Amino acid sequence: MDIQPTKLVQELKPYTPGEQPQEPGFIKLNTNESPYPPAPEVLRALETYDLKSLRLYPDPLCMRLRSLLAIKHKVPMDRIFVGNGSDEVLRLLFQAYVSEGETIAITDPTYSLYPVLAHIFGAEVKTFPLDHEGNLPRFPDLSPYRLFALANPNPPLGTFYPLGQVESLVKGAPSTLFIIDEAYVDFAEEDCVDIIRRCDNAVITRSFSKSCSLAGIRVGYVMGPLDIIQCLYKIKDSYNVCTLSQLAACAAIEAEKYYQEKADLIKAEREFLTGELRRLDFKVYNSKGNFVFAETADGKALYEYLKERKILVRYFDLPGLRNGVRISIGTHEEILALVQAVRSFIPSLRDKSRS
Amino acid sequence: MDIQPTKLVQELKPYTPGEQPQEPGFIKLNTNESPYPPAPEVLRALETYDLKSLRLYPDPLCMRLRSLLAIKHKVPMDRIFVGNGSDEVLRLLFQAYVSEGETIAITDPTYSLYPVLAHIFGAEVKTFPLDHEGNLPRFPDLSPYRLFALANPNPPLGTFYPLGQVESLVKGAPSTLFIIDEAYVDFAEEDCVDIIRRCDNAVITRSFSKSCSLAGIRVGYVMGPLDIIQCLYKIKDSYNVCTLSQLAACAAIEAEKYYQEKADLIKAEREFLTGELRRLDFKVYNSKGNFVFAETADGKALYEYLKERKILVRYFDLPGLRNGVRISIGTHEEILALVQAVRSFIPSLRDKSRS
Repeated sequence: MDIQPTKLVQELKPYTPGEQPQEPGFIKLNTNESPYPPAPEVLRALETYDLKSLRLYPDPLCMRLRSLLAIKHKVPMDRIFVGNGSDEVLRLLFQAYVSEGETIAITDPTYSLYPVLAHIFGAEVKTFPLDHEGNLPRFPDLSPYRLFALANPNPPLGTFYPLGQVESLVKGAPSTLFIIDEAYVDFAEEDCVDIIRRCDNAVITRSFSKSCSLAGIRVGYVMGPLDIIQCLYKIKDSYNVCTLSQLAACAAIEAEKYYQEKADLIKAEREFLTGELRRLDFKVYNSKGNFVFAETADGKALYEYLKERKILVRYFDLPGLRNGVRISIGTHEEILALVQAVRSFIPSLRDKSRS
Repeated sequence: MDIQPTKLVQELKPYTPGEQPQEPGFIKLNTNESPYPPAPEVLRALETYDLKSLRLYPDPLCMRLRSLLAIKHKVPMDRIFVGNGSDEVLRLLFQAYVSEGETIAITDPTYSLYPVLAHIFGAEVKTFPLDHEGNLPRFPDLSPYRLFALANPNPPLGTFYPLGQVESLVKGAPSTLFIIDEAYVDFAEEDCVDIIRRCDNAVITRSFSKSCSLAGIRVGYVMGPLDIIQCLYKIKDSYNVCTLSQLAACAAIEAEKYYQEKADLIKAEREFLTGELRRLDFKVYNSKGNFVFAETADGKALYEYLKERKILVRYFDLPGLRNGVRISIGTHEEILALVQAVRSFIPSLRDKSRS
């Protein structure tokens, strides 16, 4: 007799992360990793750690890391929760605050994990389409929604919504929990941290994966009201963040100058790529992330064409996204190689539209 | 207006992990860590890894680690799931297979995380008391229970149940999912892996934390029927296991000889400690873990007495466990220091029973 999972799990269509090719030789512009290595301070911290101490459990409460984050953001450390990547943080927020049958709200498009998390915990999803430039629409009353997950900058388009606009949304629906997902905020010009100083119904999530070049260590965090942070600590796995990951994240916080320089390089490269692709007649959204979304006649054809040439970008087989690809910002050499490949793709595109 | 979590989370009494003291100088015998460092092979793998690659996401499917585990256990790799510690594995099993209002079964005592996981997902818990020697009782029909979580060896007493006995239980309730938690099995004489070759309603969970001296890296796994493993992959966080953790675990599998030697040392030390404590008139259960449970008149007094002397053991403030402490097996020097401290405690115990 087979053991059947819960109905929710049976019906779930899981999230698909971007490819992590096992063979070498790819220019990897598909999962928004940084093209630059972690800061020298991070490498040194890992190199000088006494690896013998890995026999011991990690600090279950990430006290040192939270105290450094508290200083960085000027937020009390008991209002900060650290998780195994911001994916764990997001999952715990849904688990703690979303009950079966409730409805959560997201924009369309957005980070495609949000609807999966909603479905894992049995919630319905209401989507609000972004406008043609990727900006927020005029929203109706958001009070009926248990939770609103808003990425800012918002992948895969990368559009950014100013603090004032986001704060108005948060204040307009005080019984709705707003998750403001700032995984990409270090590539933007401002952030929304001030909202959690003024509102009790919002949290800010962050990640070390992108701007800190530490996708491999899995550290993310959330800042928000004390009672929400305490709830997450109640339900998390006991030792959710590895010892070496805590160590690397602490060192990264102290390498602000290095990471600021790298973020500036990535932003400059993003503007360069945006310009080049527009000159090739792609529609490119104004992105404040470390990626751009470029629309053409056929996103899948471009994705496959580039993959054959050992350049990986991200294609989303989702309504509204099939005519484009998301391109992570790499080094200048990588972006030049991409632009050249895209340029060589255009004739085949024209052939296609002629045929 | 405060944002309230779900009723389940509001009512939850969370799991409390053992203390991880921030000050140095403790003899730490409270969380069943190994007193020995990770194998030289593990240290070498971490030391020679190109840390710059941490900018990339980990392999979301842990392919190399699973292929090594497949060879080690002679189990196909698609029947193995790797998680962020066996705690994540256990949580995902409960999440995928336990619905609100169902009842799961455990022994009393056992790993105190199981009832917490049940409550997180809204299930009731039926407990079956172990007998006076810590052995399994005669069970009624277990079919009414959705899931049976059985640790083997079974903390905090450490008693072990032979393969034949466990297999009978599994076969007797084919619609109940048996989680056989073998976190401590490397300190026992046999394991129950053969059960998953013969039954569709059992999984085996394992950990790198104890016998592989790698509590700090958070890697655990589960082996079982293909459909169960696929369910866990559906609902896990995308990149749940850190790059360095996967690397360390792979190296640990290849250091079998080192870890076998250390397990033998720990088993010998466990028998030494058991004998010493029994000579001091403690009731000590026959443990096959890397710990023993010693009963006296007042577990809390012993725990506090030892803590004052900078020796940490584990006291459980739970019915049936308050008259004892669980002592992790340390080095011979640590165990000698513990025995000496316990010996000095006995007069105060006698004074207390006289007063």
